[in-house]
Amino acid sequence: MSVATRSVTDVCAAARRAARAVATSTAEVRNGAVVAMADLLEQRADEILAANERDVEAGRESGLTDALIDRLTLTRERIDGIARDARAIAALPDPVGETLEERRLDNGLDLQKVRVPLGVVAVVYEARPNVTIDCSALCVKSGNAIVLRGSSSAEHSNAILADVAADAVASVGLPAEVVSIVSGGSRDELAELATQDELLDLIIPRGGAGLKRALTEHATVPVLYAADGNCHVFVDATANIEDAVEIVVNAKVQRPGVCNAAETLLVHADIASGFLPRALARLQQEGVELRVDCRARSAAGPLDGLLDATAEDWGTEFLALVLAVAVVDSVDEAIDHVNRYGSGHSEAILTGSDESAGRFTAEVDAACLYVNASTRFTDGAEFGLGAEIGNSTQKLHARGPFGLRELGSYKYVLRGDGQVRP
Amino acid sequence: MSVATRSVTDVCAAARRAARAVATSTAEVRNGAVVAMADLLEQRADEILAANERDVEAGRESGLTDALIDRLTLTRERIDGIARDARAIAALPDPVGETLEERRLDNGLDLQKVRVPLGVVAVVYEARPNVTIDCSALCVKSGNAIVLRGSSSAEHSNAILADVAADAVASVGLPAEVVSIVSGGSRDELAELATQDELLDLIIPRGGAGLKRALTEHATVPVLYAADGNCHVFVDATANIEDAVEIVVNAKVQRPGVCNAAETLLVHADIASGFLPRALARLQQEGVELRVDCRARSAAGPLDGLLDATAEDWGTEFLALVLAVAVVDSVDEAIDHVNRYGSGHSEAILTGSDESAGRFTAEVDAACLYVNASTRFTDGAEFGLGAEIGNSTQKLHARGPFGLRELGSYKYVLRGDGQVRP
Repeated sequence: MSVATRSVTDVCAAARRAARAVATSTAEVRNGAVVAMADLLEQRADEILAANERDVEAGRESGLTDALIDRLTLTRERIDGIARDARAIAALPDPVGETLEERRLDNGLDLQKVRVPLGVVAVVYEARPNVTIDCSALCVKSGNAIVLRGSSSAEHSNAILADVAADAVASVGLPAEVVSIVSGGSRDELAELATQDELLDLIIPRGGAGLKRALTEHATVPVLYAADGNCHVFVDATANIEDAVEIVVNAKVQRPGVCNAAETLLVHADIASGFLPRALARLQQEGVELRVDCRARSAAGPLDGLLDATAEDWGTEFLALVLAVAVVDSVDEAIDHVNRYGSGHSEAILTGSDESAGRFTAEVDAACLYVNASTRFTDGAEFGLGAEIGNSTQKLHARGPFGLRELGSYKYVLRGDGQVRP
Repeated sequence: MSVATRSVTDVCAAARRAARAVATSTAEVRNGAVVAMADLLEQRADEILAANERDVEAGRESGLTDALIDRLTLTRERIDGIARDARAIAALPDPVGETLEERRLDNGLDLQKVRVPLGVVAVVYEARPNVTIDCSALCVKSGNAIVLRGSSSAEHSNAILADVAADAVASVGLPAEVVSIVSGGSRDELAELATQDELLDLIIPRGGAGLKRALTEHATVPVLYAADGNCHVFVDATANIEDAVEIVVNAKVQRPGVCNAAETLLVHADIASGFLPRALARLQQEGVELRVDCRARSAAGPLDGLLDATAEDWGTEFLALVLAVAVVDSVDEAIDHVNRYGSGHSEAILTGSDESAGRFTAEVDAACLYVNASTRFTDGAEFGLGAEIGNSTQKLHARGPFGLRELGSYKYVLRGDGQVRP
């Protein structure tokens, strides 16, 4: 693809023209395009691996960390995994055209509220090349055109993967421009992308705080910020201690690097001396570094190795085997703490009291509230929604898992027999 | 109220603190606050009229047009009307806490998706002081705090109306800061408001293109742009001519100054000579200025006073008794014209063909698509949704009438009995 020779605006304009074709195509055609992505990935694996090798070598030369090199690297197994994920997306129920409401109005018009594709979605992402196919598959499945903007460190990998996706789309008779890519070059190009409000319907950034800042400053296109997750587990006075230990360990340890892992444990004072010695010992066994306030320390009993929590810890998403621990005097105090420091992602209360559960779920301002369960369930697949393109902590449009149906808008269709407004 | 002494940030921070109280209050309390607004409006009518008189006098001195003076002016009847509207809002069904989805997940968690208030909504508006109460009532009813920013030309009227709304809120035991107002001064203050993304959840501008531009440039808070309406009526080859004449006249004439009035008439070539002579004669009788393309002119027969449409007319929202008229050769051509020039608001096809209706409603990208009915029905009340705060042509969050339920987000509440993620 002669990516470099086309301006960002040209690419977006072509995507906009292609969007109508994919928006009005049948589910069969769109699913066929996504399955073809999987087939072509497998057929062109050697070519993809060769392109990826160029990026990996360049990355090594420029001194990328091992972790970033790992995120950048494709293997035959990883390509097979991406293909498998694409086939799973193709097999999901069709989100386009679902009737969300239907009723006859007093004036005799038959109103139908129908889900429709957003139009053109831009995805801005960092090293991982698998995002190129994952997001293309989700967008095409949901009837959208997609404009990809990866990082320059994955330039060759992304270019060939986008080419694969565009070829797949063309193979079912849709315009190839349903999937396109702009070069991952400069911040100027990012600003150009972020201001295409006539041509783009949404930008989804998948990356760190720097990317977020760069977009916030410039974007006139609506942006869905993927979530930071500073998640809490609150162990209320009436919690079942055995269950609570298991849930806290799961929320922190099962996969500490993801946004729905717990970062702070809050414990009601009335249960602290019964709960904390066991819970903290288990967490230490699992390799968790504990940063505790003074009340948690005194309730913890004779445990070694507890660190003092600093003020900063309460607002930090560790994304690691680190947990901040505080004792609170009431459900109210727990709610205040979570609303003050939380990022509005996933928050859990462990309690035997319906009243406490009701207050916590009503008054904590977050996308997902858990009662007696781990925060780790916030996920499109776990929610029965299929794959997700991100997790929203915003309140507009979509909150929580952002999947196929959230990649849609709706329209009202009103059928009459000559109605005029009196 | 000592408005001038508090910074925009201070006002927004106070609104944010007050938001939790109104979000978690009962429907009874919120409805009581809205009814109290109506009561206080009536009780303090003299005071309100006196403040309004100061604005009107200042407006006359500064040379405001008669139309703007009219929009600015309050009378006892208008105050009664505003109070009546507030009581109607109080009587609408409660949008807060509605269960949008409910199911048991495979892992045994009971998932509930529940509508919750957005939080803090800012409304930026121009001359009309009634907006102060209308929007306060809608926001409080829907569990939100509101920050108002009116224009300096209505400063005294808005200040006392906001005071009335805040007093009403306080009279039911909610924090008065649920309703607050910032002075309508400079564009700097507007920019300060538009960048309070830590404190505000949404900005709703109600004003012209200048306001829109000023916000687009600065806003980091999500903005809901109220719609321009460049609406079309397409008369297909198989339309019922009698019905079509009535619908076109209604869409253009019934209230030409609003966003869901028709601005362009498209007519299929096969019906043009049967339809246009009657339709255009009727429209002329109703005082409509007709700007026609050459094919419409030749199909129109011996009518005087037809003007030639210019290229600019197709993209113009006249908001007046002016209609552009063109002949097209097919449904496809009509769809292309509407997608090219339309603003995505309300678009109608008049046809006897289910196939044409299906194609038009599927392929035209707009909030509201009508089959054999006037575009004038796009309205929250007509849709059975109650009052609306605006009409969205955006695709994210809400499209079409933006009423009480669109002033909400949602949260997921998941209840378990000890679930951990394997």
